[in-house]
Amino acid sequence: MEKKITVGVLGATGMVGQRYIYLLKNHPWFEVTYVAASPRSAGKTYEQAVESRWLIGSDIPEGVKDLIVQDANDVSAAKGKCQFVFSALEMEKDAIKSLEASYAAADIPVVSNASAHRWTDDVPMLIPEINAEHLDIIAKQKEHNGWNKGFIAVKPNCSIQSYMTPVFALQQAGYPVKRMIVTTLQATSGAGYPGVPSFDMIDNIVPYIGGEEEKTEKEGLKILGKVNGDKIENASGPLVSAHCNRVPVVDGHTACVSLEFDLPKEKKPSLEKIEEIWQNFKALPQKISLPSAPVQPIIIRHEINRPQPRRDRENDKGMAVTIGRLRECHVFDIRFVALSHNTKRGAALGGILNAELIKAQGFFDNL
Amino acid sequence: MEKKITVGVLGATGMVGQRYIYLLKNHPWFEVTYVAASPRSAGKTYEQAVESRWLIGSDIPEGVKDLIVQDANDVSAAKGKCQFVFSALEMEKDAIKSLEASYAAADIPVVSNASAHRWTDDVPMLIPEINAEHLDIIAKQKEHNGWNKGFIAVKPNCSIQSYMTPVFALQQAGYPVKRMIVTTLQATSGAGYPGVPSFDMIDNIVPYIGGEEEKTEKEGLKILGKVNGDKIENASGPLVSAHCNRVPVVDGHTACVSLEFDLPKEKKPSLEKIEEIWQNFKALPQKISLPSAPVQPIIIRHEINRPQPRRDRENDKGMAVTIGRLRECHVFDIRFVALSHNTKRGAALGGILNAELIKAQGFFDNL
Amino acid sequence: MEKKITVGVLGATGMVGQRYIYLLKNHPWFEVTYVAASPRSAGKTYEQAVESRWLIGSDIPEGVKDLIVQDANDVSAAKGKCQFVFSALEMEKDAIKSLEASYAAADIPVVSNASAHRWTDDVPMLIPEINAEHLDIIAKQKEHNGWNKGFIAVKPNCSIQSYMTPVFALQQAGYPVKRMIVTTLQATSGAGYPGVPSFDMIDNIVPYIGGEEEKTEKEGLKILGKVNGDKIENASGPLVSAHCNRVPVVDGHTACVSLEFDLPKEKKPSLEKIEEIWQNFKALPQKISLPSAPVQPIIIRHEINRPQPRRDRENDKGMAVTIGRLRECHVFDIRFVALSHNTKRGAALGGILNAELIKAQGFFDNL
Amino acid sequence: MEKKITVGVLGATGMVGQRYIYLLKNHPWFEVTYVAASPRSAGKTYEQAVESRWLIGSDIPEGVKDLIVQDANDVSAAKGKCQFVFSALEMEKDAIKSLEASYAAADIPVVSNASAHRWTDDVPMLIPEINAEHLDIIAKQKEHNGWNKGFIAVKPNCSIQSYMTPVFALQQAGYPVKRMIVTTLQATSGAGYPGVPSFDMIDNIVPYIGGEEEKTEKEGLKILGKVNGDKIENASGPLVSAHCNRVPVVDGHTACVSLEFDLPKEKKPSLEKIEEIWQNFKALPQKISLPSAPVQPIIIRHEINRPQPRRDRENDKGMAVTIGRLRECHVFDIRFVALSHNTKRGAALGGILNAELIKAQGFFDNL
Repeated sequence: MEKKITVGVLGATGMVGQRYIYLLKNHPWFEVTYVAASPRSAGKTYEQAVESRWLIGSDIPEGVKDLIVQDANDVSAAKGKCQFVFSALEMEKDAIKSLEASYAAADIPVVSNASAHRWTDDVPMLIPEINAEHLDIIAKQKEHNGWNKGFIAVKPNCSIQSYMTPVFALQQAGYPVKRMIVTTLQATSGAGYPGVPSFDMIDNIVPYIGGEEEKTEKEGLKILGKVNGDKIENASGPLVSAHCNRVPVVDGHTACVSLEFDLPKEKKPSLEKIEEIWQNFKALPQKISLPSAPVQPIIIRHEINRPQPRRDRENDKGMAVTIGRLRECHVFDIRFVALSHNTKRGAALGGILNAELIKAQGFFDNL
Repeated sequence: MEKKITVGVLGATGMVGQRYIYLLKNHPWFEVTYVAASPRSAGKTYEQAVESRWLIGSDIPEGVKDLIVQDANDVSAAKGKCQFVFSALEMEKDAIKSLEASYAAADIPVVSNASAHRWTDDVPMLIPEINAEHLDIIAKQKEHNGWNKGFIAVKPNCSIQSYMTPVFALQQAGYPVKRMIVTTLQATSGAGYPGVPSFDMIDNIVPYIGGEEEKTEKEGLKILGKVNGDKIENASGPLVSAHCNRVPVVDGHTACVSLEFDLPKEKKPSLEKIEEIWQNFKALPQKISLPSAPVQPIIIRHEINRPQPRRDRENDKGMAVTIGRLRECHVFDIRFVALSHNTKRGAALGGILNAELIKAQGFFDNL
Repeated sequence: MEKKITVGVLGATGMVGQRYIYLLKNHPWFEVTYVAASPRSAGKTYEQAVESRWLIGSDIPEGVKDLIVQDANDVSAAKGKCQFVFSALEMEKDAIKSLEASYAAADIPVVSNASAHRWTDDVPMLIPEINAEHLDIIAKQKEHNGWNKGFIAVKPNCSIQSYMTPVFALQQAGYPVKRMIVTTLQATSGAGYPGVPSFDMIDNIVPYIGGEEEKTEKEGLKILGKVNGDKIENASGPLVSAHCNRVPVVDGHTACVSLEFDLPKEKKPSLEKIEEIWQNFKALPQKISLPSAPVQPIIIRHEINRPQPRRDRENDKGMAVTIGRLRECHVFDIRFVALSHNTKRGAALGGILNAELIKAQGFFDNL
Repeated sequence: MEKKITVGVLGATGMVGQRYIYLLKNHPWFEVTYVAASPRSAGKTYEQAVESRWLIGSDIPEGVKDLIVQDANDVSAAKGKCQFVFSALEMEKDAIKSLEASYAAADIPVVSNASAHRWTDDVPMLIPEINAEHLDIIAKQKEHNGWNKGFIAVKPNCSIQSYMTPVFALQQAGYPVKRMIVTTLQATSGAGYPGVPSFDMIDNIVPYIGGEEEKTEKEGLKILGKVNGDKIENASGPLVSAHCNRVPVVDGHTACVSLEFDLPKEKKPSLEKIEEIWQNFKALPQKISLPSAPVQPIIIRHEINRPQPRRDRENDKGMAVTIGRLRECHVFDIRFVALSHNTKRGAALGGILNAELIKAQGFFDNL
């Protein structure tokens, strides 16, 4: 058996950090050997640091329980303790930005869940099924920053994961999308812990999530963009208008999508054609069988009342997008409901898949 | 004090029927003197018939508790016992259609909450703030059916009540609406009792409500239509595409609306103008001070995270529409969130307001 | 019309403080003229200070909206601005203790919702239906502290309000209670705002509330105690064992009670007798018609599945206790379910009732 | 590989029936070859019969999807199609009683989830960790009824599963329990589907579950009883008083227990001793490693706020009892909170464990 790559988790005591710890248990390629968090957790064992705030049913994995939590701000402490890090930092944005850069500068690649570097134009924002080739920018990123082995790769916001892959699949099949109106019904785990007060989520919904609509509208453009010389150039479309709502669901973001193709009427795909495209969609992660990749990235359910968060979020390890209710739209061309697991595909497990892709593409060699 | 008009409630033991009973307590114009339901309730007192299924916190109103429930199918039993009826019948659609007609034929006007007659083209479907003049069709309706004093008036579905009045207000002010994409987050009380199983509404949403999207898309066209000769002629727009979702909320339907005006760019209203129109909107029910009319039909909240069902549904007796988050739409022209109370404005109290309008316009004279 | 007594609210921006502001709107005796909170709110208008954290559906009352929030620590600022204060302070316990004493020392009586002084033995802990005569201790309290017009009165924890009055009614009728096992199902509003994370309250309950079981077990003993010379002497029973649980309910604490009388078998009351005692129970607040007193302090419901929080919490302005399921206990003597509104009877409106009692008994004269 | 035993599921389309189908997928010993339900499902494939009412996230297992559903009333149809049946029948109690007997008479043993035969005194009501030896009564049962290979075994109600094993462990260790007051907070899945209306479970709890308190109080006595000649003789204690509540939780019943030992004070176990007993408790299912048996039947959590349904119900395949908050009781001796998964341990998987025990003890030989 090959030796596993050692990995650190930054922000290890928060909700996303805990999910990394939990999901990396028994990972075939990676092994958590380092955990870092805020100074007030530093010096405690991981178990002491999270105590009654361990949010996952199962116990803390044996190998991590007794690791001593380090101060995430102390980059030097990580040197030699882990080969790369997952960043689930919860700090002010600029602080994350420079701290992640410091790890990269110290030869420790950063696979980040944070939004800080999403718009840094030489940092790839990955959905491995869509834009694996954006990893090509890493050479430039290293060059720009004078980094040797370190680099930064990020993932997009959880709110777009349910419909970006389906949209990409359509575009790739020759059906460009012009514009979309998207209303999301988002789970409370997306806000971390303590996150949304229960007072707001019992017999209630909240039709607003700070910053979420902007992310939902813009991040897709970079993901669908192209590496061009020194940077990733955004795609010009599709145009998106988003309404983001918080609903009383633990995990699983649902999106109601109305979509218009950028095609003359006679060239628009039929519903059957669309379904066929989605059913058959496979991409690099499937072809090279990345450990956390879903076997089938897009699952279609035909029951009239699906997908539903509690019933469909765990499909294929929580990594598949589940789609239902594909039908014509009276205003645009088509309508559908898409669902993805926001703390698995949309956060920690999505980050792990990114790392698997990075590893498989050789970017972790020579660490 | 003038003598009150006596009224019957058909389907009195169901959720909407109970709300009629409750909301008519101490009504200044109407007094419940007759209750009818399915044959299996007939012969019991109202209290016995509903027993542990009385769904409202307060007690059954004193005057109704001891009324003997009649078989709703027996129209003759109602003769002389009430001057008009509210229909909250829960039966197969065709059965409701003919039963409501039988009451009308028996000189007992029917103010209905049911969908059966919504598309009968000489039956007015009323939102009193919008189309009070549709009552003009009643003379024709009586003539067509050979009815003397009886007639039928209906109300539209609860899912459209939150945005129809705002849309009408804009159109009336000279800003016609071309098309809208609407996603609703609807309360479970809309499905009656027992209605939606709790198994579907804990840690879950259901992205489908049978028949609701069709109603949402089409009913507005009749409401915005015009009486033309023998019938009500539908308006030609706006075009609506609806996504209807059930969410774990007791009362209060929320709609996320993206809307495009049917105007050249330079003639489109500013957000300030729109807000001014909504703030100042008053209609006939306000002018003639109908007892159940909201003082201000459209309330605007400026907090970034409102309206919310639990906090805003009871505004102005549960009869006002509350709007928030008015902002530009990147795809259409504007976006906003609208909320209305589905069992008050959207059901029983909306029906009562209809009856008040009908009474005020003289259609109950000579009963 | 008599001039109203001016009142200040300390901790006015928190959840309980907001409830005071809201519930005192149009109060016949009291008028809010002063609001104080933490230093960071000081200097803002009340509306600015609470902004999007106004937790109640209705708007902020007109008269309060524009009051400038003062620093609650600055007792001198309150002098001349209000005749007494409601304390809804949310600070560290010792800080509240000394701050409330400072207000009293400054001739400003304090009617407190906080737990800080509950065990100060010359401070009355009031449930007006039970121990109005504990106000007699106030003279001693003033004497002990060298206070002139100021004094402190407190209310007990919300978790005991549902069953203390019923227990008292039984004891007063000659049926002393020996011991009780009580399991509470408590609403999340009891934890304030943001309070309990929604992550803990969706598809979940939490079988622990910090400090709650101790309060539940001990506070009743002081309430049932007697003024004896310089202090209030605790009653020796009943003995209580409490299990306190947090459940996904907005408002309304439910208690499942098993109770044993301290009587030989033949002297124990029948279920009918108990029901009669509860039905007929009235106390001083009812006799002197305090504005916030429930007409009937104990309401009994006979439906097999009541009381329920959402249906019964608002009974009689949220001030009545609702009891159901009175039946024999196989282990003790009787079992029942009791419900009270934790933020009305159990917090702000309970505090207002205390102030009404204090005023009616003349303790606010000469302020 | 040994040939699997073929098994039928009666009531296969209901919630518990679906769970059997789902949980038996890939079972090492049993294979579903027969499904039966009400006459209106008969003749359809299983997939057609359940359609949009398939309540479990994963798909219907391949091998079952296309089985033709039979009429459960037609015992002869099952002959030769399956060697024994799981009964998850949802019918009137007497009908279940005689139908289960008919299957037994037809040489088809019945492992039942229904309550119909729980009080038939020659039918064992099994919790395999407690009373495996009650299987000895089967010989008598066959003799009494003149059955050849068929017999009936049942499981107790889901409400008692969380605390019966802990109580038994204490008694077995020499600490007999005299009496207990138990308050349960039960998940809605216990009521099947559609079960509890969402209207009752949003911002609400219901302090009543029909028949549940009686079952909770009495079933333990039979389980703790002894086979004596022709029948199972009940134990004389412990005496239980139960308060059963429905709470908005999908799966997982929680019990708050206060318990008194039947021992002089000096012989009562310490909290440490109790914890040691529970930690070390193993029984026959563990010793013979039944496939569905939890490795550790009683798990103790030391976090102050555990067990919680969502976090602890899945412990050890949903088959372990999780206990927390063990502490002294001011009224009795000890208090604790116990949790078990009501649709796994408490229903389908509990039934499967019973069948595994029955098989392991040889009662399925020669079928």
